[in-house]
Amino acid sequence: MKAEIIFTGTELLLGQILNTNAQYLQQTLAALGIDLYFQVTVGDNLERLKEAISQAAKRAGLVIIGGGLGPTEDDLSREALSRAIGVPLEENSKARVITERFFKTRGIAMPSNNLRQAQAPVGSVILDNPVGTAPGLAVENEAVLYVLVPGPPNEFREMVTNQVLPLLREKTGPRATVIKSRVLKLCGISESRVDEMVGPLLHSSNPTLAPTAKFSEIHLRITSKAPDSEKADRMNGEMESKVRDLLGNYIYGSDEETLPEAVGRLLESKNLTLALAEISSGGYLSHMVTSYPGCSGYFKFAVVSGIEGLEELLSVKITGPESAARILAGAVREKAGADIGIALAGGSKTLCPPGSDLTIATSFMEKTLSKKIPVPRSGAAEFRQMAAQLCLVLLWHTLKKM
Amino acid sequence: MKAEIIFTGTELLLGQILNTNAQYLQQTLAALGIDLYFQVTVGDNLERLKEAISQAAKRAGLVIIGGGLGPTEDDLSREALSRAIGVPLEENSKARVITERFFKTRGIAMPSNNLRQAQAPVGSVILDNPVGTAPGLAVENEAVLYVLVPGPPNEFREMVTNQVLPLLREKTGPRATVIKSRVLKLCGISESRVDEMVGPLLHSSNPTLAPTAKFSEIHLRITSKAPDSEKADRMNGEMESKVRDLLGNYIYGSDEETLPEAVGRLLESKNLTLALAEISSGGYLSHMVTSYPGCSGYFKFAVVSGIEGLEELLSVKITGPESAARILAGAVREKAGADIGIALAGGSKTLCPPGSDLTIATSFMEKTLSKKIPVPRSGAAEFRQMAAQLCLVLLWHTLKKM
Repeated sequence: MKAEIIFTGTELLLGQILNTNAQYLQQTLAALGIDLYFQVTVGDNLERLKEAISQAAKRAGLVIIGGGLGPTEDDLSREALSRAIGVPLEENSKARVITERFFKTRGIAMPSNNLRQAQAPVGSVILDNPVGTAPGLAVENEAVLYVLVPGPPNEFREMVTNQVLPLLREKTGPRATVIKSRVLKLCGISESRVDEMVGPLLHSSNPTLAPTAKFSEIHLRITSKAPDSEKADRMNGEMESKVRDLLGNYIYGSDEETLPEAVGRLLESKNLTLALAEISSGGYLSHMVTSYPGCSGYFKFAVVSGIEGLEELLSVKITGPESAARILAGAVREKAGADIGIALAGGSKTLCPPGSDLTIATSFMEKTLSKKIPVPRSGAAEFRQMAAQLCLVLLWHTLKKM
Repeated sequence: MKAEIIFTGTELLLGQILNTNAQYLQQTLAALGIDLYFQVTVGDNLERLKEAISQAAKRAGLVIIGGGLGPTEDDLSREALSRAIGVPLEENSKARVITERFFKTRGIAMPSNNLRQAQAPVGSVILDNPVGTAPGLAVENEAVLYVLVPGPPNEFREMVTNQVLPLLREKTGPRATVIKSRVLKLCGISESRVDEMVGPLLHSSNPTLAPTAKFSEIHLRITSKAPDSEKADRMNGEMESKVRDLLGNYIYGSDEETLPEAVGRLLESKNLTLALAEISSGGYLSHMVTSYPGCSGYFKFAVVSGIEGLEELLSVKITGPESAARILAGAVREKAGADIGIALAGGSKTLCPPGSDLTIATSFMEKTLSKKIPVPRSGAAEFRQMAAQLCLVLLWHTLKKM
């Protein structure tokens, strides 16, 4: 099966938005073994959108259009599709239910122009949208399947995963070539060191092995092309074993697993609890740690403040900026009755000081370790992300050895 | 001048790479006032790349091709362009110097396949690449200007900025038009309500006015096309005034300003301080609020925990899940000695309960208000983002009226 993707949105062509939907959909199609030869982006213009649709239909059996399903007059995907395939629009009662439900659950009256969103070419199958007002749709015409998906990334992903993917799986059946990827996630090691260690494996052509660096993590993507899913999984598994033999000590997880999850699982399995004091990271570390669903089992509490606020909350006296992190790590552990106390502080007394250096202190079993970490010049947002990430890396490696 | 962009690379179509080059080039063209109607991505396939080039030449006077200039056999941009325009390739001595220089300065012998990179259609102007092995090129044929730029993002950006931009500025001359945008950011109003209120302004063609929804914010982008920057600014300003007349009460900021910044500025100007108790949002609200650099002036502290942890920390007794948020908002305000206390809680006693409903309580001047908010089905990450966002919207509107 050949596919073509069209994204519509003038903001996309003006470079006002980074098109992350494209990558998400491409990965989904690749995983299904559906070939994608062209992807086209057009502005919110009826004629050009129609032209792109008509051309795609000549080149592909599946045409997916992202965006242009909002309630306003520059949302043109329904109209352009209708004209391109010569099938009129009608009000679709199933689509109307979806749009109306959005307003009902929020207790708001639906403005009349949202009714535009209930329009669909005659014969369409409506795709549910539990997170927005725009129903998606699929319609077949002259052996081409057209699928319309709303543009806001959360709606796009929800619908691609839960509506479009099952639909396409039904269409492709069991005999397609399959491309499958598996990502191994490493922390506490540099990209060039990974490069050195896996060496010749990087030249393998099927499966391929490709490293990318993300903050203080390295992701190694293994991609296999095979006649069926099981074969691809087996090939990926063999490559994974080779990588694990070389780098196993640094691999905290794979695919969708995150470092906070890996840390959370280690805390769970070792039956340890955690408390945090955040000066330098402004709540971002708590946000990361509590993103794992089981967090209420091991997360006692976090306090976010400058030094004064923490002194008050934890009934403790800070003697100097150097010792702040160490004292706070011990104090927060004691106050919470937790096994591990962690504090992130810099050289300043105030909350989230700009461009500050970073000290991470860990208090465990009456012993406190602290580490001053040089953080490269960066913006405030990057600084706290990096601080939280470095703290998780440290915690993961420490827990792993326990 | 009309442009079309083509990106080539199978890894792009497989979704292994997020195409950040696209956005960079789009912004560059927009700033020059060059219209972009289509952008096409194709794989590393000679026929399809040639087809895309030929088609682009029918629709645009400027065709920019990104990627496919490496030394390997699947780097096909030079060959595809040569075939599409019927102009043969030759070894270009200037291009050869660039490729050889890369190896010379590193003291490495040049592999013979890098000689492919010195090939260019007869009559090409070579574009320097000081950071990689791939020279770029520009060639004019039958009134269409073709520009080839290498794909690695650092090489792409370098060449676009220092080679392509001056070239295009020369082409467009001093009478070029400029496209400038300004974004007004609204909260506490639905997209369709915005639509109704600004009504006919949405049909304006220059400036254009385009709404997009992001969580509980609406962004209104005003875009003007004018002969110079000052004129474009003036046109944007006039449209902004009209929008402000209609929707001023909902506009919290513009362009790069964020809602946490707007809330922070209001707290600063009214000389009010804030304390938070987060059950449902796991630290995410603190992270948002403290992202404004001046936060240490108004942010007293935040506590993140389940009900038990908060009872302990704030020395308070929760009588039932219904009243939890109200009691905690008052308690955190008192404990912190803050002017405003805010608590985010759901129907559960544990931290960040999955799929929970949300109650936001605000305690101010001995008065506590609480609001139970129906949150649509969503993932845990979206839930807390939405919770934090809704809380900021509420806070902004409350502070605004004070």
